Amino acid sequence: MRGEIVKVAVIGAGNGGQALAGYLSVKGFSVNLYNRSEKRIKSLKKNGGIQLGGRFKEFADLDCITTNVEEALDGVDLVMVVVPAQAHRYVAEICAPHLSEGQVVVLNPGRTGGALEVKNTLTKSGARKKVYIAEAQTFLFVSRVVGSEAKIAGVKNVVPVAALPSSDTEKVIHLLEKIHTSFTEAENVLETGLSNIGAVFHPSTMIFNIGRIESEGNFSYYFDGITPQVAHFLEKLDRERRKVARVLGVRTCAARDWLKEVYNSCGISLYERIQDNGKYKGVAAPTTVVHRYIFEDIPTGLVPIASLGNYLGVKTPVINSVIDIATQFYGVDFRKIGRTVESLGLQKMGKQEIIKYVNGSA
Amino acid sequence: MRGEIVKVAVIGAGNGGQALAGYLSVKGFSVNLYNRSEKRIKSLKKNGGIQLGGRFKEFADLDCITTNVEEALDGVDLVMVVVPAQAHRYVAEICAPHLSEGQVVVLNPGRTGGALEVKNTLTKSGARKKVYIAEAQTFLFVSRVVGSEAKIAGVKNVVPVAALPSSDTEKVIHLLEKIHTSFTEAENVLETGLSNIGAVFHPSTMIFNIGRIESEGNFSYYFDGITPQVAHFLEKLDRERRKVARVLGVRTCAARDWLKEVYNSCGISLYERIQDNGKYKGVAAPTTVVHRYIFEDIPTGLVPIASLGNYLGVKTPVINSVIDIATQFYGVDFRKIGRTVESLGLQKMGKQEIIKYVNGSA
Repeated sequence: MRGEIVKVAVIGAGNGGQALAGYLSVKGFSVNLYNRSEKRIKSLKKNGGIQLGGRFKEFADLDCITTNVEEALDGVDLVMVVVPAQAHRYVAEICAPHLSEGQVVVLNPGRTGGALEVKNTLTKSGARKKVYIAEAQTFLFVSRVVGSEAKIAGVKNVVPVAALPSSDTEKVIHLLEKIHTSFTEAENVLETGLSNIGAVFHPSTMIFNIGRIESEGNFSYYFDGITPQVAHFLEKLDRERRKVARVLGVRTCAARDWLKEVYNSCGISLYERIQDNGKYKGVAAPTTVVHRYIFEDIPTGLVPIASLGNYLGVKTPVINSVIDIATQFYGVDFRKIGRTVESLGLQKMGKQEIIKYVNGSA
Repeated sequence: MRGEIVKVAVIGAGNGGQALAGYLSVKGFSVNLYNRSEKRIKSLKKNGGIQLGGRFKEFADLDCITTNVEEALDGVDLVMVVVPAQAHRYVAEICAPHLSEGQVVVLNPGRTGGALEVKNTLTKSGARKKVYIAEAQTFLFVSRVVGSEAKIAGVKNVVPVAALPSSDTEKVIHLLEKIHTSFTEAENVLETGLSNIGAVFHPSTMIFNIGRIESEGNFSYYFDGITPQVAHFLEKLDRERRKVARVLGVRTCAARDWLKEVYNSCGISLYERIQDNGKYKGVAAPTTVVHRYIFEDIPTGLVPIASLGNYLGVKTPVINSVIDIATQFYGVDFRKIGRTVESLGLQKMGKQEIIKYVNGSA
């Protein structure tokens, strides 16, 4: 690892990528920043780095800001992928020829099946080098690019991470701990992947609020959008997610309990706990129906959960109903573009083999 | 027909039934009014009739107000059924033993498959008498019970009616014309049934506005609830409905053109024509998610259309997606309680036989 300095490539210069790249540089890491389009990094290149805002106010110098992924990956120890999860496959494809032995790739976050899809993509691309692949369950920061500043508004306390296989997790965590102490070991990528709470909260709430989003767009997303009956629906959907996880031997937190754990929200039902969560009050609803709550959370959340359920004989009618109406509403075949047992590379494995595959020799 | 006076039984003492019963009495018909529950007719019984409001201000004497269907049907020429369409099967079951030769039963309206379901129910109940069964495409009045008055706010200009088989339609229309000149001959019950515009407009708009209905409930249903993208979805759904109709040899009006025809609304798209329809401006959204827009229009609209489509090889993915998410949201198996090819008595017929069955020997 070239002594003490860890060299990091950050893939993606959106809200998250800029915050992470800036933070890493300020913390003394050597940072390359890659983005697919020139447009987003044009001014960063001109300035030679990123102006942080929020909790950090410093200007962060970057080693290299580029649209050339080969250049970005050259000589780095760690590749932090911070792109919408539906782009993970594409990122894996363009990185495949340029990854070198021993590099660690972490998806921030992986959503459902990120590491599995990336590994399968690398394997299919013919890459033979030993590369470590891991996924975080959530993104480390609450951050947003405002004007020319990458603002870090908050830092998560716990960011579970699992490598694929999880026998590699310890090694990955050892590296990530140098970045932040919030990174902790998850059991395996089924746990991180099937703990996808966004997939529970986001798409259904969009569907049941389409009219309001398009005609006013001015309401509190969780607070007003998740009404008692919508919350009831989400709880049914959540049970399907957890059932799929359980069949794969993974204990996941109910969405309702996750609210208690993360936000210390009180109440009996999911509805009550959402209403009790002050942090949700200010979260505005999307102002357009074309939104990552659909275009990220369906193909990399609901679709892989439903696909795994279908493969393992777990019925997911609630999840299916959301995928289907979104497919018709948006005219996008989410099952086709989304992650499936096939695109995760699991289509020849039985349940026990899947569990063995994600756990490795540990 | 006992000379000039037509004796009518009105089945159902809701908004529509009270208005129709009152109107008929005022027009000089002899009227029996039946309702399943005593509660709704208690005060009517005390008063011996119905106080009309709106266009008619008279007090209407009724011959008989009863929860006894045998009593209501005794000696009448015409049975006007004015109940939610999901109750048609029940009405047929309780009427079956008491219908007599030559009586005319008209569903006001039938929604999709009303007459077919009633005929099949009567047949299965073993009724052997010749009874005429017909369905209207819409209800004659715009009416509402307010306080103790049955207010008739408007009268439709055209109310297409078809008998099953349609070789009987002329006879039925001859009788209905004595009631109102708006009743006109439709081609057959496939035309009246598959011209179900409510099934196009109502359930999907509910689903996409669930959050708003439950959290505010204070918006214009058509005007604000049917946003451009919701309207786009409705147009896709409408094309499926019309495709099913076309396969059965029935030309139906597109929802978009129906708006032009009925309301003279201008614009190119469905969205524009809804926005141009001043009469929709004041139509408030339901204030509860449990509403006939779901519980009537899905089982007696979308479900039979989808069932016919499935039977005839016409794909209806948009309609299916609405049925499915409603099934999960409400926890009600709408496909099971709704009208299907089986409950319409068509399950042994090919396409040509269905057409022959509805047209009769004419």
